[in-house]
Amino acid sequence: MPDAPGRLLATYRIDAPAGEIRARAEALAVEQSVEMPLAAIADERVRGEVVARVEDVRAVEGAHEVVLALAADTTGFEASQLANMLFGNCSLQPEVSLVDVAFPPDYSRAFRGPRFGLSGIRALVHAQGRPLTCTALKPQGAPVADLARLARTFALAGLDVVKDDHGIADQAYGRFAERVPAVQRAIDEANRETGGHTVYAPTFSGGPEALRAQARIARDCGVRMALVAPMLVGLPAFVSLQAELAGPVMAHPAFAGGRIAAPLLLGKLFRLLGADATIFPNHGGRFSYSRETCLAIAQAARAPWDGIAPCLPVPAGGMTVERVPEMRADYGEDVMLLIGGGLLSAGERLAERTRAFVAAAAA
Amino acid sequence: MPDAPGRLLATYRIDAPAGEIRARAEALAVEQSVEMPLAAIADERVRGEVVARVEDVRAVEGAHEVVLALAADTTGFEASQLANMLFGNCSLQPEVSLVDVAFPPDYSRAFRGPRFGLSGIRALVHAQGRPLTCTALKPQGAPVADLARLARTFALAGLDVVKDDHGIADQAYGRFAERVPAVQRAIDEANRETGGHTVYAPTFSGGPEALRAQARIARDCGVRMALVAPMLVGLPAFVSLQAELAGPVMAHPAFAGGRIAAPLLLGKLFRLLGADATIFPNHGGRFSYSRETCLAIAQAARAPWDGIAPCLPVPAGGMTVERVPEMRADYGEDVMLLIGGGLLSAGERLAERTRAFVAAAAA
Repeated sequence: MPDAPGRLLATYRIDAPAGEIRARAEALAVEQSVEMPLAAIADERVRGEVVARVEDVRAVEGAHEVVLALAADTTGFEASQLANMLFGNCSLQPEVSLVDVAFPPDYSRAFRGPRFGLSGIRALVHAQGRPLTCTALKPQGAPVADLARLARTFALAGLDVVKDDHGIADQAYGRFAERVPAVQRAIDEANRETGGHTVYAPTFSGGPEALRAQARIARDCGVRMALVAPMLVGLPAFVSLQAELAGPVMAHPAFAGGRIAAPLLLGKLFRLLGADATIFPNHGGRFSYSRETCLAIAQAARAPWDGIAPCLPVPAGGMTVERVPEMRADYGEDVMLLIGGGLLSAGERLAERTRAFVAAAAA
Repeated sequence: MPDAPGRLLATYRIDAPAGEIRARAEALAVEQSVEMPLAAIADERVRGEVVARVEDVRAVEGAHEVVLALAADTTGFEASQLANMLFGNCSLQPEVSLVDVAFPPDYSRAFRGPRFGLSGIRALVHAQGRPLTCTALKPQGAPVADLARLARTFALAGLDVVKDDHGIADQAYGRFAERVPAVQRAIDEANRETGGHTVYAPTFSGGPEALRAQARIARDCGVRMALVAPMLVGLPAFVSLQAELAGPVMAHPAFAGGRIAAPLLLGKLFRLLGADATIFPNHGGRFSYSRETCLAIAQAARAPWDGIAPCLPVPAGGMTVERVPEMRADYGEDVMLLIGGGLLSAGERLAERTRAFVAAAAA
């Protein structure tokens, strides 16, 4: 087995005293590969080609960064095992965080990346040269007819994408099989009236059988986009589902917080695993991500990557129409602005505020 | 819709100043249910029956604990949506941790819990009135014949369960389809020679198609136990897979670290979702869980729970034969002791040390 498949360079932050950091790094290399005493490994090939290597140890503010070279073969070129080798056992070690991963040149070929990506979503909604606009149907528990009416209002106002709230799933008060066709019909009707191209992205959730059934229902009623939380359905299920979807998939960050850096997980990894768009909590809203972190997520989503299409960044989480100019200045035009509660709080002036959002993004 | 399905009482720890904690708790209740301004919800039923309620706010050391009552219906009685409502968005808020959940009386009926559980595993390996013993086949990358030979040594020594290392998946150097039947054959042969009942638990990993294929291969060659990391394959895929397995499933904690308390996630939730056994990093090994946390995990796994069978706790992570008496004192007899590297480091005296482990557990 040659070393040809290469190694992933994974950067970890470790909180450990300087005097212990080299030993701690070596222990992490063992933990994230063979997980056994090296002295007990007789096989030279395993020691040389399977055990992770410490490539670098450097002091950073208040901690150390350690770069491990993980043998690509150990990841099985599959999503769950990739996550396992990057952060499986050390997720249980609170002093360790995963900061970034550099993949060897051919690694991304094992994964497809976005099938549609940023440009595919633009084409779908017929929007060029401006930020895209998105909102969410809320609240869960509202009668299906109310959600459909809400979707119609949004579509008439000219939003590009209307997604389900991430809390909407297949619940007793709004079964996927009833709700999704009703909302899609409402949007289709509005599109016919306006000549517009609003797209609906319902939430897909549950186990493999449920996801397949939802994909069939969605295809049958003309749904052309999907909302999925990869960390809730599981990374490999997120990948598998894509083959059953007629259009792009938008990743939701629910359950994705933790000690994997957000630019790596929400930007780079979700993109590698096929996210055409990735939602993240923008700074200054209900979440505490810094502006720097948010820009890094957008950068990871859109940066050139051999053979992997750009993914559309979608800042969200308490945004308002007033912040549209600032968000454009931050992210440029290749972005989708998601305003949920900030539209709904307009109450009876919902249509008006939605049109203002659309106008601000088109300005 | 009556309130009959009840509410889940979820306890969160929030790091916020005392003067802000009530508002922070109310905001969390909204975040984890309807995720929109309450003033914009006209529907009285949604406000009364879908929005989460703050049930309690109390000061604890250095922070506050907040109890939210989450409407059971919002969880859709399904694993991914349960995780979403408990910790979806607030996983992105580093000041919030999930401490515990109390389920309403009928809630557990929606999930099966362990199909075999602690007593089912005892019956499978013919072991009563003593702790069970377990080890792991390592390292990944070793030739299949070497792993099979290792399994034979362990089975001849009388271990109850031989599992794959969690890093062993479906890799180029040891395909599941070749490796698992070879190891199962080696263990079957050893059992025939000794009259023993050693069981093999291979690692299942990957997407839904891969898991189904692995389950078929495993059934075909007589495998009677499985090792799965629920957080790697995804919680709903973990549930779905069980229908395809011939025997008990042991949950591995890889990728499960974070801000959900370990007793809740590795103990209570994995058990609710069907784990017959749950591996966790014992105190004093390579991981930093406290003794108190470890005992709480075992307690959550085994405590009486209406209609849900007890789950077998499996302390691991750097254990040694010398610690067997202490672990028995800690956990009692209803436990499976997992020693991996601590056996392998014996080198040429592997069989001897394994027999010492078996004897210590039987003493």
